[in-house]
Amino acid sequence: MSKRITGVLSPVITPFGKDYTPDAERFIRQCRWLLGNDVGLAVFGTNSEANSLSVMERMDLLEQLVESGADPARLMPGTGACALPEAVQLTAHAVKLGCAGVLMLPPFYYKGVSDEGLFRSFSEVIQRVGDSRLKVYLYHIPPVAQVGISLGLIERLLSTYPGTVAGIKDSSGDPANMSAMLDRFAPQGFDVFAGTETLLLANMQAGGAGCISATANVNPGPIAALFRQWQDPDASQRQAALDAVRAIFAKYPMIPALKAAVAHWSGEAQWRTVRPPLAELEPSQAKGLIDELTAAGFSIDGLRP
Amino acid sequence: MSKRITGVLSPVITPFGKDYTPDAERFIRQCRWLLGNDVGLAVFGTNSEANSLSVMERMDLLEQLVESGADPARLMPGTGACALPEAVQLTAHAVKLGCAGVLMLPPFYYKGVSDEGLFRSFSEVIQRVGDSRLKVYLYHIPPVAQVGISLGLIERLLSTYPGTVAGIKDSSGDPANMSAMLDRFAPQGFDVFAGTETLLLANMQAGGAGCISATANVNPGPIAALFRQWQDPDASQRQAALDAVRAIFAKYPMIPALKAAVAHWSGEAQWRTVRPPLAELEPSQAKGLIDELTAAGFSIDGLRP
Repeated sequence: MSKRITGVLSPVITPFGKDYTPDAERFIRQCRWLLGNDVGLAVFGTNSEANSLSVMERMDLLEQLVESGADPARLMPGTGACALPEAVQLTAHAVKLGCAGVLMLPPFYYKGVSDEGLFRSFSEVIQRVGDSRLKVYLYHIPPVAQVGISLGLIERLLSTYPGTVAGIKDSSGDPANMSAMLDRFAPQGFDVFAGTETLLLANMQAGGAGCISATANVNPGPIAALFRQWQDPDASQRQAALDAVRAIFAKYPMIPALKAAVAHWSGEAQWRTVRPPLAELEPSQAKGLIDELTAAGFSIDGLRP
Repeated sequence: MSKRITGVLSPVITPFGKDYTPDAERFIRQCRWLLGNDVGLAVFGTNSEANSLSVMERMDLLEQLVESGADPARLMPGTGACALPEAVQLTAHAVKLGCAGVLMLPPFYYKGVSDEGLFRSFSEVIQRVGDSRLKVYLYHIPPVAQVGISLGLIERLLSTYPGTVAGIKDSSGDPANMSAMLDRFAPQGFDVFAGTETLLLANMQAGGAGCISATANVNPGPIAALFRQWQDPDASQRQAALDAVRAIFAKYPMIPALKAAVAHWSGEAQWRTVRPPLAELEPSQAKGLIDELTAAGFSIDGLRP
């Protein structure tokens, strides 16, 4: 069978030092901890503040991560960009480093663009990278990018590049959309990842490949356990427990909340920093989050250096 | 009086050659023609497909333009970017080349960000560039960026960086918003540019600085004439004539339509090319546009090499 990347992946949050510079050492440590919890690394996703990083910063962090010994077979870096040459550069670089796949946003500045224009965007990247090892996972996140990936676009890309267009992360939050993608494309070997673990069980039951979820940054072990044991009798209970944690985080701006939780349970206050245009949680918000998580019996283990 | 850049500026369309590479020679020729029509150069705006260009492509084109003899006092390049280091790099480069100002988009990937986060974004760029020659023109274009510049944010930036935050391009299309900006900030020397020439006369009558408009790419002379003669008795007639031309272009996707018109009247078919995710007009659309413009007595003179 396929050796493609599947399971639970985390869009790894990016730690910053003073002056908002990425902290490579802390980043690598976090990635190791996630891998140790059986969670793959969708570095440079939305929750990684990837679009707030320069092209050079992204390439540099990825190189350091691979050089540190992280298995590229567990890596799916985000490589989408508004500018075609930059998407090509990031994607070619990830392929050269042996990454299992890349998670590719559409160009997201212009709104209301046609499927023809988006097809050309993905097509140009695939052709210019020109490497049979490339596996593209489309990134459908209309609430943020405001530019989505339609079923018609997937169909055209999949029929034009069947060996390369490998799957999608569906962050629409719409179960009906996920079902439609699974029904139409999973039988062709197209891997559909839910964009949240709240749809993980439903995704697996319908032939999906797993999930790529913000909260895998803070709750990796239990999410990965549901992926492994989704056919067990207690799967619904596991799903409900995951949903309860997610519901607490969902009351706050997600990225600052993830960082506040990691800062708290790692004891490293530096984790709180987000790059503009984001802003960290107010101290009272952070306290509210931690208090509520603690009251629910939640904690993050193994983060202290 | 102030030597600040005012008047009519064009977000210069970017010509591409084969493989979507920018055509510097044709770009410089177009810029010269616009300057000859008394129109300044807001290169790398939305209509320039700037966010579809890499950072290196933008810097390279700007250097070639300045080296060709274009007066930097007539230049307001777009330098906004989602990633702080890239906005800093582009802005510092434009200042070093002596540009009159920069037109700065907010970071536009994350939606629903706070004014605090946006303030930090602009503030970091201004502080890191750290050059008293820098003049920042904020770029408010909510229909595309989906991240806008509020009156409260302008107030805070203007009071923190009074010598640097110099004005705004208001592409909200909302006359009430433009009026509010003019009322509150123009008396402090804040230059408000309308985002379309359809609001040029109203802008000038209320103390504005001019306009930065897509259709200045194709109708520069008459728009610049209204700017110079807005106090003349025939100003309303001039405005009406501009509006009639704009209304024809507004029936089509703007960037491909501008390029189709320039391709037609320059005789250079290469102008039609747009970078993905945009797509050029269908031949029937292009014919419809040119026919309607021609029937209205419109043509573009002086474009043939």
